Order: sequence, then structure tokens, then C-alpha cells
Amino acid sequence: MAEITLTFPDQSQRQYEAGSTTLDVAKSIASSLAKKAVAGEVNGTIVDLEQPLKQAGQFRILTSDDPEGLQVLRHTAAFVLGAALKQLHGDVHFGEHQSNEDGFYLDTDRAAGQVAINELPAIKKAMQKVISANQPIERKLVDKAELLAEFKDDPYQTSLLNAIDAVQINVYRLGDYLSFGDHALLKSLAPLKHFELLSVAGAYWQGKSSNPMLQRIYGTAFFKAADLDGDLKRRAEIKERDHRTIGRDLDIFFVDPEVGAGLPYWMPNGATIRRVIERYIIDKEVANGYEHVYTPVLANLNLYKTSGHWDHYREDMFPPMDMGDGEFLELRPMNCPSHIQIYNHHNRSYRELPIRIAELGMMHRYEKSGALSGLQRVREMTLNDGHTFLAQDQIKDEFKSVLKMMMEVYDDFNITDYTFRLSYRDPANTEKYFDDDAMWNSAQAMLKGACDELGLDYYEAEGEAAFYGPKLDVQTKTALGGEETMSTIQLDFMLPEKFDLKYTGADGQEHRPVMMHRGIVGTMERFIAYLMEIYKGAFPTWLAPTQVEVIPVNLDLHTDYAKDIQKQLAAAGVRVKLDLRNEKMGYKIREAQTQKIPYTLVVGDEELKAQTVSVRRYGEKDAADEPIKIFRDSILDDIHNYSRTGSGKVNAEIESKLD
Amino acid sequence: MAEITLTFPDQSQRQYEAGSTTLDVAKSIASSLAKKAVAGEVNGTIVDLEQPLKQAGQFRILTSDDPEGLQVLRHTAAFVLGAALKQLHGDVHFGEHQSNEDGFYLDTDRAAGQVAINELPAIKKAMQKVISANQPIERKLVDKAELLAEFKDDPYQTSLLNAIDAVQINVYRLGDYLSFGDHALLKSLAPLKHFELLSVAGAYWQGKSSNPMLQRIYGTAFFKAADLDGDLKRRAEIKERDHRTIGRDLDIFFVDPEVGAGLPYWMPNGATIRRVIERYIIDKEVANGYEHVYTPVLANLNLYKTSGHWDHYREDMFPPMDMGDGEFLELRPMNCPSHIQIYNHHNRSYRELPIRIAELGMMHRYEKSGALSGLQRVREMTLNDGHTFLAQDQIKDEFKSVLKMMMEVYDDFNITDYTFRLSYRDPANTEKYFDDDAMWNSAQAMLKGACDELGLDYYEAEGEAAFYGPKLDVQTKTALGGEETMSTIQLDFMLPEKFDLKYTGADGQEHRPVMMHRGIVGTMERFIAYLMEIYKGAFPTWLAPTQVEVIPVNLDLHTDYAKDIQKQLAAAGVRVKLDLRNEKMGYKIREAQTQKIPYTLVVGDEELKAQTVSVRRYGEKDAADEPIKIFRDSILDDIHNYSRTGSGKVNAEIESKLD
Repeated sequence: MAEITLTFPDQSQRQYEAGSTTLDVAKSIASSLAKKAVAGEVNGTIVDLEQPLKQAGQFRILTSDDPEGLQVLRHTAAFVLGAALKQLHGDVHFGEHQSNEDGFYLDTDRAAGQVAINELPAIKKAMQKVISANQPIERKLVDKAELLAEFKDDPYQTSLLNAIDAVQINVYRLGDYLSFGDHALLKSLAPLKHFELLSVAGAYWQGKSSNPMLQRIYGTAFFKAADLDGDLKRRAEIKERDHRTIGRDLDIFFVDPEVGAGLPYWMPNGATIRRVIERYIIDKEVANGYEHVYTPVLANLNLYKTSGHWDHYREDMFPPMDMGDGEFLELRPMNCPSHIQIYNHHNRSYRELPIRIAELGMMHRYEKSGALSGLQRVREMTLNDGHTFLAQDQIKDEFKSVLKMMMEVYDDFNITDYTFRLSYRDPANTEKYFDDDAMWNSAQAMLKGACDELGLDYYEAEGEAAFYGPKLDVQTKTALGGEETMSTIQLDFMLPEKFDLKYTGADGQEHRPVMMHRGIVGTMERFIAYLMEIYKGAFPTWLAPTQVEVIPVNLDLHTDYAKDIQKQLAAAGVRVKLDLRNEKMGYKIREAQTQKIPYTLVVGDEELKAQTVSVRRYGEKDAADEPIKIFRDSILDDIHNYSRTGSGKVNAEIESKLD
Repeated sequence: MAEITLTFPDQSQRQYEAGSTTLDVAKSIASSLAKKAVAGEVNGTIVDLEQPLKQAGQFRILTSDDPEGLQVLRHTAAFVLGAALKQLHGDVHFGEHQSNEDGFYLDTDRAAGQVAINELPAIKKAMQKVISANQPIERKLVDKAELLAEFKDDPYQTSLLNAIDAVQINVYRLGDYLSFGDHALLKSLAPLKHFELLSVAGAYWQGKSSNPMLQRIYGTAFFKAADLDGDLKRRAEIKERDHRTIGRDLDIFFVDPEVGAGLPYWMPNGATIRRVIERYIIDKEVANGYEHVYTPVLANLNLYKTSGHWDHYREDMFPPMDMGDGEFLELRPMNCPSHIQIYNHHNRSYRELPIRIAELGMMHRYEKSGALSGLQRVREMTLNDGHTFLAQDQIKDEFKSVLKMMMEVYDDFNITDYTFRLSYRDPANTEKYFDDDAMWNSAQAMLKGACDELGLDYYEAEGEAAFYGPKLDVQTKTALGGEETMSTIQLDFMLPEKFDLKYTGADGQEHRPVMMHRGIVGTMERFIAYLMEIYKGAFPTWLAPTQVEVIPVNLDLHTDYAKDIQKQLAAAGVRVKLDLRNEKMGYKIREAQTQKIPYTLVVGDEELKAQTVSVRRYGEKDAADEPIKIFRDSILDDIHNYSRTGSGKVNAEIESKLD
């Protein structure tokens, strides 16, 4: 028989008979390797242990330690899931299946109604039965024509088969169940011990919304029990931090796609948080010399033609409204042109600079519906926006003062996990950027100088500047591990040109100001989604929708006193609720904890007599009696210090106690 | 000669020779009447004193005491204006002219550039010259064909002539100047002594924006000097109160029709006022049990089809945006459907009622461009909106509590001039209204009962209810004398049906709630326009954009002390500015008065030494020294009491001192 030469990762070469399997090769090296082997990889293609090797080339033996080995395990899990479902429901059809870093999935279509989440335990049990039976999985090459005949009543498999350009197709079969494709499977089901079915969700056939909706079953699998445990804990953690879950559980917001995808409704709880933050950021900015304005969300489309948004950003904009007489109104995608209108409404002098215009500016961006997610990615958003018009030699000082304010804000919200990215133009391709070398060089030097003076630890990104100027971004991490830009400071040399902005200098001549776009907390939507994640819904006292809940021990005896407490706290500006429902005290206390209310006050005989309240802080098991005035002063302190000091320090401390 | 019979207003009849003039008739009655007569009226048509009377019929002699007599005077003034302009500028063309209750106007078109406001004194002088020459105005009937020939180079007059369906046309001529039409003129120019040219403004020929723009010259005229004086004073008063003038002078807002008609930009001063009011009204509502929310300005058009707005209100709505796939998004014209979404997001129980949902809700209404006016009539507006969902038997109590809050708000803003209008359905046409007799009768009785219990003085308007329920409106007066609805409380039986709203009653059954729409201060735009008018721009301290201006006597010596004062006040939350410009102190003080800043603090040697400030209140001539701490406490008092007590009582008191 012919021989083939296999080249191993260490570049050593060995000769094997053509038709040898990966298992043969492993055995030829070491019997321990043969035990650990789960698949092979020939010239980048993964093959199962018993597939005959016919090609010479680069060769690897994959074990349970290789990421590719894990994918083989997960493909096998998806296969077993299919086989188990086929046993449970003979009439089930299958769509696509996939294995990836997050686990595996299989799309299913059951005539009698789709698989529901509460069926997953039974399906898991059926999978375990298939695994313990440990029947061999049969693999062979089958003619495509034969497969097409076998699947003639299955539109999904027929369509998948038609997409394969081959005469013969690799097929795995277990009893009645058959799956085809290039995904190698395990030789034996024995290693498939540590797996879990996670969730179900509708998925359009081949991702097209005009196609039928199948039910996608998600799962994951590992070689080791500890790895599965770790992964399930991580998933629980993400779920606990997921702002969509928190938003629903704490009644913060909802989105109804029927009424408008990406258009969130803020329920009273969410609106309270948002209002506190809006007032905070406006007051902060006003104290820092910003002049807040209100500008319209609509403008003549010509404004966005002048600004360049219509030319370069059109696909993210809403369709213009034809008002007749050649007038087209457009929902603004950004606030910059509006603030330029404010600047241009008066003649400006160098004495006024820097002029800092700020607004909680509502904007509309037409995100694709697939990209929408809770409050994180929406179509209508309100941006904490600001535009400073300044002379070139003011850039450094202004940049520093924005950074300083930014750090103060982060501190007030207890945001600690972020990185700085300073973006320059690409020095090798300066012609791709706004054409003013002197301006770029001086501005970049000023930004870098300011960062250095403030002792920031920043990453310099050459070639990542915008066309119109250099910028500094502050990146934070989302619960799902992604990175997002929380804050940004961008210089802009271009819009002042496009709108012919001017100021009169000390020399009596006209000069062109520079514009600085900056956002501190970004959009209200995304910022509050982020806060929900880092706080796990346990908002610090100053932000909590309900700061105090008062619970009388006995409705007949203690309601008056509870009302009196409520009144005193409300008069001091505390957001306080009274729970007078006909429920048990323990139930009410537990519910206040579930709602993550910072303080629960229980009042009974003792408290009434001593004119105290029994204070239970969120996340703590024990309560302590405090005179009402002491409690009032302490919670006001907590609120006014943004919960950074004293009893209200929610984040790390309380969270660690909860875990 | 033939005779005609004239019937006088007292129904007496007299015979006159056909061809007699009004002057002849007046003389025949009394020579004093002949002196007072300015024109006649035959069968409703006004004729000049010398026009031959040919028709029998109803006849009146008009004197300077009759409103119609005043119109004759004003037409004559417009005629003299034309004649004077023709003398000054031979090449001027004329469009339409008119006389009305407000005065008169004449449209002009001058090849060498339109008449400017600063030319009016010279034009007035030229008119006086024409009047003193006192040449006779010649009237005769001229063939239309002859006139068309005479005006062949004048497109405006040609067009006006073509619109007249007569062979012969009445023409008045004075020297070179000729005017035609049915407007009777005075016999002599002598009574035209008391007139004024007021303003100029562009006016499209025949009101069409596709036509050329002429220049309209406005004026007024009276028979008596005292009447003219009174009218000019009234005009000055209106101008002083006109929120558009105030808005410009105090830099509160602007509208740029090129960027968007009816879409105001709030400059920092206006934005500050608006922000203070928004926070005030939200805090007030929250304290009164309202739950504030934020809901999107966009929604699927279907929402407004369900609500009925699309069927009945479409012409006031913006065009829907076609998003593809059959999805149409609409800018909301009202917030009610959004708040219904909030109500419907949970199952509701009778225990929760009344549920009060409130929002500063941005809405868009497509007002005709001719109807737009400053902040009073706009296309994008933010409404102080609230919707309460309640059980039928809660209507009376809820209505009273809204009224109580309303009165408190009026008191805080010092709004005193308003009337109540309670609107019922028409008892003779109950079939025109939402069909539920029991509900109407009970609800109307509850509203009336509540008004009576509160001792309101209200007007009952049968047949003025909305289709969907009875309502109470609060009417206020605008500077121009018009009436506007400031606040409204409307019951709605219909929307709960359309959206199938429910709550679970104490009986465990499903019930239908009633909706109450209510607005306290209306839209931010209109409310602040109204406040500008009643305050004449002198906002009380708590609302003033700048509350205190600090002026050092000598920049070299007193700037540090002034800065210290500024810092102390700012730390206490006062909006304080420092005037460090290189200008004279007196100039700065006058400017602070022009800007209507409530407090001006001047600091010099004496104040520095005594650690005091020299306090000058807006509208007062004298200043008084006060220790800074005393001043600080007093202004904080002023702010926290909504300027109702103490030194800050701006309105009546200060205004009367200013007049």
C-alpha cells in the first residue's frame, strides 16, 4: 500500500500507510497519547480518530487540552442532543447546529409546538441515556443523491445538502439519527459527561426574518467537571449583571418591539435614577463653566448636509420628512450642529472663550434591529453632550479641566475599571486627515502633555484619530466582557471650517476657533445600563429609586408611627416608601432586599417607645436600633456624599458580603 | 329729476333728488351734522361725502364717532402715504392697502431697495406736507380699460384691476397719484392730523410665498390726539410685554426659520429658567404622588391608529417615516398613548389606584407656518403632562387634589389673572358624545361638586366638553389680549375602551379605569412665553437666569473681594456673575438693570473694609449696604419662597415702581 508522510508540529516527519487513522498514529507514538487523543488535524481540517488518513501534510493530534478538542466534544454533544430529541419526538426536524467558544446549539422544529425551557431537564436525561448506552457512532461517506432521497421530506436538511458542493458527504449515524457535515465527532461518547442545556430561543432559519422561526437549544460541554462548574458560575454572574434582567426585575425600563424596537420606556424607578443623574451631571457641568441649552431634535436636512453627516453618516440616520415646498426635516443624529447654531447666534470675542455649550441632547440613530439591546443599544438616546469653542492655545488647559471633571464624576459613581486611549493621526498617511500639519502636531502634543502632567496611564493609538482631529477615549468593560467607550474628548478642526465659525481676536482680526466634542457619561441609556451592571442593580443610596422602606411590625399598632417616620424622612428629601400590605413582616423584609432598597426600617413596640427605628442595610443580616434623627442625618450624609463614605458604601463591601 | 327715498337708522324716511350727495343730506338735517360728517353708508356700502346718491334704501351718515368713520380716515391715511411715497420715489410700485381695527398698511415695492424703518420719519414728514397743501382729492368713475392702459407697466395694479368685475371703476386721484377701489376717502385732508407710521415688514404679494416679497408699511390714525396717544402707549406696553422682544433682549431663545420654523433654540438664559421650572414642577408632582417617567417621542404609527389620533388629528401630525418592512414610525402628537403603555405594562389592582403617571413629554405638532409665533406657537414642544388612571368613585377627590396643586403652582408663580371654565356635554345632543349616560351624569356632578366645595368662581359651558368626557379649563390672558388655556383637567372614558385598560377590583373582577388628562403649566414653551409677558422679563429671583451681578468699583483694588463674594454666593447655590469688563461702573449698573438682574452688588473701599456689599434691587434707585452673610440669607430666603415674601417680591411692587 502507498505511504504518506505526516509532518508534526515540531516539524518532525513520519511515514504511515495511507488509510491509517489518527488513532493508529497516536498509538505509534505512545499509548498514553492514544488514550488522550480525541481527534486529529490534517492540513487544518479536523478529522475523527477513525477516519482514514489519505493526504500527506501538516498533522496534529488533538487532545482534551486543545481548544479544537473541546469543539469536537461540543459537536458531539450537539449530535447527542439531536439523537435524544429524535428518540423523544420522532417528528422533530433539525436546522443548523454549531459549536463555538461559548458552547453549542442545535436548531429544532417540532410540529407539535417548539421545545420549551422546562423540557430541558427531560431532554438532558434522554441525552444521558444515549451516552450511557454508549453505542458506536457510525461514520461513512454517503452519496449526496442518496442523502437527498433520505431527506426528501425535510426542507432544512435538503437545503443544507444542496449547499454542499461534493458527490460524497461525511455522515455520522446513531440508531435512527443521522447528521452530516465536516464536523468531526468523538469516537466514543464516554468523555461526554460534563454538559448542560442552558436555554432556548427562537432563531429564524438561516437568520432571515422572512424564513420560518425554529427553536434554538443552547448548551455547553467540557471535559472536566470543574470547567463546567466554573462556566456555569460565570454564566450566573453575567445573568445577575445583565442590565436587561435587572431592568425587568427592578422595574426600571422595558422595550416593546411592537410599539418600537430600540425605543425604551423608562418606568418610574428607572426615571428616578435617570433624573438624579441628569440633575447631577448638569449641576456638575454648570459649576464647571458650561452653559446648558435646549435645542430642537428636528432641523432642516440642509444643516446635516452642511455638517457632512448626510454625506458620511446617512445610513445611521432616520429618513427625512418631506414637509412640502422643498423643506425636509431630519431627526438629528448628533448635537454638534445644534450647538454650532448657539455659537453662531452671536458675534463672539476672544474674551468669551472658551465657550462651553452643553445639553442633555436627544438624538436618533437608526441601528439595525439585530444590534439593538435593552438600554445598551437603542434608536432614541439622550447624550450628555458638550461642545467647547476655544482658541488653539487653550486646548491643553481645557483638555485638562475636562479630564479632571471626568475623574471626579467617575469617583462619584465609583467607576474604577477603565483605560485611556489617546488616538493620533497615522504619521505615515497624514493625507488621509484634515489638512493642517501645524494644528495636528500642536494639538497632539498638547493632549499628550496634559495626560502626562496628570500622570495618566494611557495607550497611544497611532492612526485611530478621527478625520477631523485627535481624541482621548475612556474605555470601560461590560458585564459580557466587551469594551465600550464611556467618555470621549475629541478635537475638531473641520466643523469650524464647514460652518465658518469665527471670533474676534485681541488683534481685532477674525480667527477660527477649534471645537472640542466631549461626553462624560455618554448617553443616559447606555450609562444607566452600565451602572446596573457594575452595581448588580444595588444602586447606591443617592441613586436608588426607593432609598428607604418602612415596615410596621403590626399594622394595627404601628402604622401611625411608621407614617410619622415616612413623613419626617420625606420632608428631608429622602425617597421613602411605606409597606402597608397585608403580608407577613418577614416577607416584606425579604422583598425589600430583592428590590435592593438600601435601607429597611422596621418599627414595632420597642421602636415606638424609644422613638427609634430598626435599621437594616441592604445585604446585611443584622439590624440595629437608631434614634430617627441619627438615622436621618446619617442617610442624608450618605446621599450627599454619593454613598462613598459611611454606611452607604454599597459597592465592593456589600457585594462581597452578598456573594 | 327723479327722486330717491332714504331710510334713516330710526326708520324715518326722506325724499332726495337722485344725485344728491351725503353732504347735501347732512346739510338738510343740520349744519352741525354736515360739519361732523365724514362719509355716508348706503345699503351697507360706504360712500364719500361727494359721491352722488342714486339708490334708494337704508342710509346712515358716518361721523368721526363711528368705527366706520375711523376706517375712512385710515384709508385716507394709506392714500396719503401712497401719494407722499410717489412724490419721494417716482419709481415706487404699490400692492394692496388695507385699513382695520389696528390701523392701516400699504404694500410697496421700490426698485432701488425696499423702504427701511429709518426712512419712516422722512415719509411721515412728506405726508404732513401733502396734508398741509390740502389739495382736493379728485374722484371719478373711469373705464377699466383705460385704467389697464394707464397701469400697463405695473403688474400688481394690473392684477388687482383684472380681479374687479366691472366696466367702470371708482378712482381717487391726487396729483400724480391714483388709487382705485371701493374704499371711500375723506373729502378734505384737514382731519388727518393724528397719525403715525409704525413699522415695516416683508409681505408676499397676495400672501403667497412663491410670489415676490413687497415691503409693508404699517401705520395708524385717529381723529383725536388723545386717542393716538393712548394707542401708541398701548403699543409700547404690548411691545414691552411681547415675549419675542423680551426673548431677544434678554437672550432667552431664538428661532431660525432657515434651520426650522417653529423649532426654538433655548439660549443659556432661557435654558436656566426652563430647567428651574422643570425641576420645580417635577418635584411638586412627585410630592403629590405622581410617578414621573420618560417615554420615547417615536412610536409605531399603529399606536396612533389605535388611539384614534391618526384618524382625527392627522393634519396636525408630522409625516410618518417609512422604515421598510411595513414599519412606519411617527413623532408623537400627544403623550397619552405612551402613558397608557406604562399603565398596561403591569397587571393593575384597585389597591394601586389612582395611578398618576407624569412626564415632561416632548411632542411634535405640525402647525401652519403662518400660525407660528416665538415660543407661543411652535412645532416641537415639551408638555407638563400627566395621566391619572382611577376608579369612577375617585374622580371627585382626584379632581380636587389636582385643583389644589394647580392653585399652589399659580401662587408660586404669582399668576392671578385667570378664569375657570367647566365644560359639559350638550344635554340636547347627547348622541354626539361618548355613549354612557350614567358615567357622564356622575362625572359632571362630581366635577361641579368639587368646584363648589373649593368655592371656585367658574363658568359652565354646556356643549363644550370633548367627545370623550367633561373638562375644566383655566384661561389666562396674553399680552395681546387673547385668551389661552393654561391648565386643563379632562376626563376620558374613551381611551380606556380603545386600549382595553383594566384593573382588578376588590371583588376580584376586571374593571375599566377612567383616565384623567391634566396639565398644570402646559408646555414649557408657552408657559415661559406667558411668564415673560406677565413679568415683563423681570423674572423673580428664583427664576432669574442671573440672580446676582457683582461689580467692583475699581478693577485693580476690588476684584479679589468681588471674586470672594461671588464664590461665597455660588457655594450657596446662587447664580451669580462677576462683571470684570473694562467699562465704567455706572454703565455696568445700568446694563444689569437692562438685563433685569434681581440684585446688583457693588463693592468698593467701604464695603471691603466693612465686609459688606452695596445691594441694589432691580428697579430701585437706591442701594443699601448689607453684611454679606445677611445678604446671602436674605436672597436664599427670597429664592426658597419663590420670591413671594421679603425683598424679592418682584411683580406688582417692583413693576409699579418702574412704571
